[in-house]
Amino acid sequence: MKEQKNKKITSRNVDFAKWYTDIVRNAHLAAYSNVKGCMILEPNGYAIWENIQKILDKEFKKLGHQNVYMPLFIPESLLKKEAEHVEGFAPEGAWVTEGGGDVLEEKMCVRPTSETLFCDYYSTVVKSYRDLPKLYNQWCNVVRWEKETRPFLRTREFLWQEGHTIHETAEEAEKETRCMLEVYKNFFENVLAIPVVTGKKTEREKFAGAEYTLTVEALMYNGITLQSATSHYFGQKFTKPFDITFSNRNNELEYAYQTSWGTTTRMIGALIMVHSDDNGLVLPPKIAPYKVVIVPIGKEERVFAKAEEIHTLLDRADISNFIDLSDKSPGYKFAEAEMLGIPIRLEIGPKDLEKEQLIVARRDTSEKICLSLKENVIDKIYNLMDQIQNNLFETALKRNLEKTYICKNMKEIENVIYTNPGYIKAMWCGDEACELKIKEIRGTKSRCIPFEEENLSDVCVCCGKKAKHMVYFGIQY
Amino acid sequence: MKEQKNKKITSRNVDFAKWYTDIVRNAHLAAYSNVKGCMILEPNGYAIWENIQKILDKEFKKLGHQNVYMPLFIPESLLKKEAEHVEGFAPEGAWVTEGGGDVLEEKMCVRPTSETLFCDYYSTVVKSYRDLPKLYNQWCNVVRWEKETRPFLRTREFLWQEGHTIHETAEEAEKETRCMLEVYKNFFENVLAIPVVTGKKTEREKFAGAEYTLTVEALMYNGITLQSATSHYFGQKFTKPFDITFSNRNNELEYAYQTSWGTTTRMIGALIMVHSDDNGLVLPPKIAPYKVVIVPIGKEERVFAKAEEIHTLLDRADISNFIDLSDKSPGYKFAEAEMLGIPIRLEIGPKDLEKEQLIVARRDTSEKICLSLKENVIDKIYNLMDQIQNNLFETALKRNLEKTYICKNMKEIENVIYTNPGYIKAMWCGDEACELKIKEIRGTKSRCIPFEEENLSDVCVCCGKKAKHMVYFGIQY
Repeated sequence: MKEQKNKKITSRNVDFAKWYTDIVRNAHLAAYSNVKGCMILEPNGYAIWENIQKILDKEFKKLGHQNVYMPLFIPESLLKKEAEHVEGFAPEGAWVTEGGGDVLEEKMCVRPTSETLFCDYYSTVVKSYRDLPKLYNQWCNVVRWEKETRPFLRTREFLWQEGHTIHETAEEAEKETRCMLEVYKNFFENVLAIPVVTGKKTEREKFAGAEYTLTVEALMYNGITLQSATSHYFGQKFTKPFDITFSNRNNELEYAYQTSWGTTTRMIGALIMVHSDDNGLVLPPKIAPYKVVIVPIGKEERVFAKAEEIHTLLDRADISNFIDLSDKSPGYKFAEAEMLGIPIRLEIGPKDLEKEQLIVARRDTSEKICLSLKENVIDKIYNLMDQIQNNLFETALKRNLEKTYICKNMKEIENVIYTNPGYIKAMWCGDEACELKIKEIRGTKSRCIPFEEENLSDVCVCCGKKAKHMVYFGIQY
Repeated sequence: MKEQKNKKITSRNVDFAKWYTDIVRNAHLAAYSNVKGCMILEPNGYAIWENIQKILDKEFKKLGHQNVYMPLFIPESLLKKEAEHVEGFAPEGAWVTEGGGDVLEEKMCVRPTSETLFCDYYSTVVKSYRDLPKLYNQWCNVVRWEKETRPFLRTREFLWQEGHTIHETAEEAEKETRCMLEVYKNFFENVLAIPVVTGKKTEREKFAGAEYTLTVEALMYNGITLQSATSHYFGQKFTKPFDITFSNRNNELEYAYQTSWGTTTRMIGALIMVHSDDNGLVLPPKIAPYKVVIVPIGKEERVFAKAEEIHTLLDRADISNFIDLSDKSPGYKFAEAEMLGIPIRLEIGPKDLEKEQLIVARRDTSEKICLSLKENVIDKIYNLMDQIQNNLFETALKRNLEKTYICKNMKEIENVIYTNPGYIKAMWCGDEACELKIKEIRGTKSRCIPFEEENLSDVCVCCGKKAKHMVYFGIQY
């Protein structure tokens, strides 16, 4: 057992919710604001978001997507154009009713999502199949008037990206829907080191107005699931009410086919709840704003000189790092670097200089190793970053497998959910009534029908009738 | 005289306002939306904004600034805390009065600027001089309920960055105010190739709540001035009502000293109105999303192969470029590249291949030159980009000097403003009454008191009393 070095935070095994907010506050990721339900992204939290943006944006652009920016407001009449959509979003709307000293003739919703704005725009610019596809994305803020909020996981305002594309054929749009889900899956697994389950949402859980919704689901340390990214296929459900037609290759007018896909600052919440521990935040090197902190021990000039030398070396290798020159004890600095989730700590003291070595501490395992300065330090650091990245993924994956249960009846579901929650794999008849009965067990919801279903049994876990699908169930944030 | 190749757009000498919107629409920079007063940033416009963000953000970070994100909404009581500030911004506020189906107990303003939110936050996190300075910035959207709007120049919602810093001493905060103004000035001149005038706003024209405002002013092709970036010194004007105190080095409680500084998507409007012409957008290479377009002439395989080769060469040199492979005539492609403002066009046809050459067309001068493929093409392109960048700056500077007038009396001001407007340099007594009288001449406003004042005369251009300052006046957007 590791010793808990930082007394400021609650242990995650004692009170997970408290531990979570302790990390958020003590790692200076976000602060509460006087604007109810809205959070302040502090520099450490925003820097993670900037890295997320940089990496995802590059992937989007590689696939031909372009960024645009739509208005913040949606006039009520525009939001109402697609019936299921307005029904889904209007109840949590924030409405601007006064502007420039006057009461507005038509009130405007602060965008909860921008399908309607993109459709309105597309209806004016798309004329022919030659104008298709349009592969647009935007990075912006959205607002949903949630009753209960929690930093990163559920706030009234949050930051996200929303891709909105329209296509000539259903096939092409469906391919895009699936392709963007894979982009998210790869990002979660390879960059955030978070293993995920992907699949299709049930009718009940799909996005308001979509034909179907694909989802990336992640499992937190405490066995609660988190919907982490979604990709929706709309078919012509919006293009018809918004009259987005184009002349197709046969010179006939046809409604275009549409997708949307998004992910949010919620990912930062997932990073906390999957990787972090009782000493603070733990970040995979690929997403950490600083990969390395250098802590000089003592006050000797030659120690500072060596620290500077290593700093320059790392900078040149594009490994973002800093020297902690603050007026604090080494122990305090170590604890702080751990709290902030910096993957690698380098300690240099007079004794190390004599031995021509550095002490390297891993954030993920707390392991300390000696690194000879005669070796290629940069190669070693790169190597260590890979090891940390892989270890975080493997640790999470192992935990996910331990927390994944096959349930054959309602009793088994109850048993899992009330004792040691996690993913529940179970067969389902496809009937919403059964979904609702399962939901009565501590709010357990279907997470997704995975792309590759196993045949666990022939009958529905709830009603015993013929099963149609294997479903992942779980409690959700 | 250059021939006007693109008939879609109005000539800038015939109808400047129409020419401006023609460029906005035909270069696909922005579109009008059904959300009154709000614009849609289309891919070409947003890509310029992304470049602006990338370059400015790097400069901010070099100087130790960190990015954060504050809530979108400001509760009415928070906005009211500083009297001048609320008086300045409340009249153009957009107010959220309903959320989640309920009428809100306290209405919330959609942020027109975030001084109050930053102050509210700083008041909770600053305790000691050791916590200072805080050098925070955010990139976000803001809303001001303008009556008359124009794409990029004045819209109800716009994108910007706002830096908000607090400091231990007035001296340090004033240094920051000036330093950030210099960052803007350098960005405008060296990146956007827009020569600017910098100085201090008069009391009448300063930011609502500031001790003083420094400004970057630019002159458009038609002689109208554009306030392009501002940097404000607040002293303790906000830190007192918001109670932002810290224990100073003498262990006494003291109110902190504050600045803010910002610039917006309005810069894209300036790029249009300073550099562009009757053939479309003209962009300085340093800010252009694509620096080079390659146009293959004819259908021969060896031509496409050479185009690909050049494309790869440019990519490797990090010169962003694309091959226009669309099914259009070369003439159409040339006109389109001109409309989009791509600084350099490379034409390759079968004859060029035989002569082992490329045709290089400059967007700024329409000049065409032969470039031997035996030479170092990349060096030549770099060199040409520098020449274009410099030429655009020099052309604008020359025009600014031609359009800068010294006026000694009101008649002279009237004469300039009604016949050939531009910058008016004139002496001023410091009295607001005189400023207002000058404003009666077609809305001519003081732009700034430059950092280096010339002594043009001893008396005020308006009242004839003793002059205090030399002021730049002009009509503004």
